[in-house]
Amino acid sequence: MPTPVALQTREEIAVVPAGGAEAPCCVPAHGQDTLAATEAEALASRFKALADPNRLRILSIVSSSPEAETCVCDLSEPLGLGQPTVSHHLKIMVEAGLLNREKRGVWAYYSLVPGALDSLAATLAPKD
Amino acid sequence: MPTPVALQTREEIAVVPAGGAEAPCCVPAHGQDTLAATEAEALASRFKALADPNRLRILSIVSSSPEAETCVCDLSEPLGLGQPTVSHHLKIMVEAGLLNREKRGVWAYYSLVPGALDSLAATLAPKD
Repeated sequence: MPTPVALQTREEIAVVPAGGAEAPCCVPAHGQDTLAATEAEALASRFKALADPNRLRILSIVSSSPEAETCVCDLSEPLGLGQPTVSHHLKIMVEAGLLNREKRGVWAYYSLVPGALDSLAATLAPKD
Repeated sequence: MPTPVALQTREEIAVVPAGGAEAPCCVPAHGQDTLAATEAEALASRFKALADPNRLRILSIVSSSPEAETCVCDLSEPLGLGQPTVSHHLKIMVEAGLLNREKRGVWAYYSLVPGALDSLAATLAPKD
């Protein structure tokens, strides 16, 4: 799983000092301590996996399951979606590192990757 | 600002008990206590606003600004983007309730909507 990166994390990025093309408006140049481009890419791809109502509902079902895992066969019905659509959404969340997939017999079972959602939450609301 | 909705929030949704079309695989039906479709839509639209590396970098710059606000004129340079692109991303984040916009003179100034990121974080990692 990728290391959590807080939006406020201190990361060096190359900043070109503001030139004279536009009149400076207001505040000293900033940006030296902000999210680097490569980290922003990685973080954005994980938020993209959450940016779909059906995927959020799948995560909710999996996380509220008493067994801490959910059979792919138990998702179509509550979501009102066909199996291929459910599988498509599950694949995206596995690739994003949000869900684990375990095949047992004819069915695949999905569980939350431990710490994945907490890690994303920490990038939005760092504790320090 | 929309009320935060935890992924584990207890919300009633209509669940049709699993029928006999597919052999039941494993666990009791669940889903009664999961995220409702309408709330999933609202939440997904906010994550969609975060699902872009440039928007994450803008949020990072705004949140790390000593003045707690950033002039639109100070974003193009560190992001390496043209003003129209920056304005497009800013508009999406204002509409998603993540940023406030205040016009003063010829420039617009952007600040974080208080609590907006914390509220989203709470949906990923509820404390209760």
